[in-house]
This record gives sequence, C-alpha cells and structure tokens, in this order.
Amino acid sequence: MAGSPRLRIDLDSPIPATRQIADGLRVQLVEGALRPGTDLPSVRQVAMELGVHFNTVAEAYRMLAAEGWLDLRHGRGARVVERKPPAAASRMDLADYRRRLRELISQMRAGGVSPARIADELRSFAEGLQP
Amino acid sequence: MAGSPRLRIDLDSPIPATRQIADGLRVQLVEGALRPGTDLPSVRQVAMELGVHFNTVAEAYRMLAAEGWLDLRHGRGARVVERKPPAAASRMDLADYRRRLRELISQMRAGGVSPARIADELRSFAEGLQP
Repeated sequence: MAGSPRLRIDLDSPIPATRQIADGLRVQLVEGALRPGTDLPSVRQVAMELGVHFNTVAEAYRMLAAEGWLDLRHGRGARVVERKPPAAASRMDLADYRRRLRELISQMRAGGVSPARIADELRSFAEGLQP
Repeated sequence: MAGSPRLRIDLDSPIPATRQIADGLRVQLVEGALRPGTDLPSVRQVAMELGVHFNTVAEAYRMLAAEGWLDLRHGRGARVVERKPPAAASRMDLADYRRRLRELISQMRAGGVSPARIADELRSFAEGLQP
C-alpha cells in the first residue's frame, strides 16, 4: 500500500464527486505518480477521507478500470496496472478536446484571469509536455 | 433576434446538459460572438433544438445571468448585457483553473493525443490570446 494518493475534491462544485475523483487520480496515473503495481487505498478509506459515499469512490475506480488503468480485485481493492497505449485519438475526439479547452479558457477569462496570464499558463504546460 | 447561437451538446456526456449549454454560450460571450444588446432565442426554442427540457436551458440562462452576462426579462427571454470587468481571479481560483487544465491535459494524453500534439494545441490557443 503506497498510502493515499493526494486527492482533493470540492463538494460544492457542480462537477460530480465521482468525476472529480477519477480526474484527480487520472492525472497521477498519466504523470506516473501512481505506477503499475501500486495498490490504491480501499474505497471505504478514500470515501472516509473525502467525506463521500463509498459508492462514489467505487464508481470512480470502475471508470478508471474501464479505461484500463486499474485492476479491481474483488473485495481486495484496486491495483494500478500497466496500461496498453491508447489508440490515437480520432478527429472527433480532438475536436471535442479542443472545444473543452476553449471552454475552460473562456471560464478563466470570465473569472478574471488576464489573457496574458492564461497564455503564460498554456505555454508553461506546453513546455512541460515538450521541453 | 440574432437567431440561435450555434450550440452543440452531447446528451451522452457525463457533463450535465445545463453546464454544457452555459459553457458553450460563455465561449461566445467571452469571445464576442454574442455581443451586448443581442437577444438570445427563447428557452423553449433552444430546448426544442437541443432536445432537452426547457428547465435545463432556463437554468443555464440563470447561471449566465448570475455571472453578469445576461439580463432575464420575465417572459420575454434573455438579452446579452455589457458585463462589468470581473475582479482579478484569486490565487485559489488560479490554482483551481490550473488543476482543471492539468486534468484536461491528462484526459487528452489518456485518450491517445500525443504530448507533442497537445503542446501544439496549447501554444496555438496561447497565440490566439496573446499574438
């Protein structure tokens, strides 16, 4: 057991807690902070720490298992597995990701982040991906 | 009446339709495709076009009105208004936006978009914000 992955969720957010948990864990899986072979803490443990129903956590684990990140062993929790490289995204997927990026940027602008600051953030993430 | 703003939503998405509608309209408001003085189509008209309940559209309009984009005139639809410039985002807001950007990038990587391609997309949006 590697201890609880650091996860933060916002119970006041309009984004369902299940999605917040899956999104937060996916970052750690993609970025390699959670490596194959790692046992995740039990659904009940995470649920208690986050103050959500254990079904909420179980559903997030199932989502990530369906994406190929986790092996759910009955009654014994979830283990990170080596994931097959995904098929290349389709043009439709790309258009959808681009739309979501554009929506997030609009939210940042509407929320009082200056275009210059947003551009800096985007460039800094680009740099992190492709130094 | 400027005609329906082009809006597309995905009824199979885990993102609630209300949020998809608000997010899509916000892009057009932020980017200036919907300008102050424009009358939005009625809630019922948009609901019919998108195949959702009219309450779903009404709630999205109310969200945007609460953000200062729309004036909802009882029974007569919604008009785009001049919005006060938002207060600068707090550090907490910025951290939240950064987290969401990171989550979206992880979703793209998990979904088979190469890091180089994602970096290109991010740089292209940055360029659009700050040529």
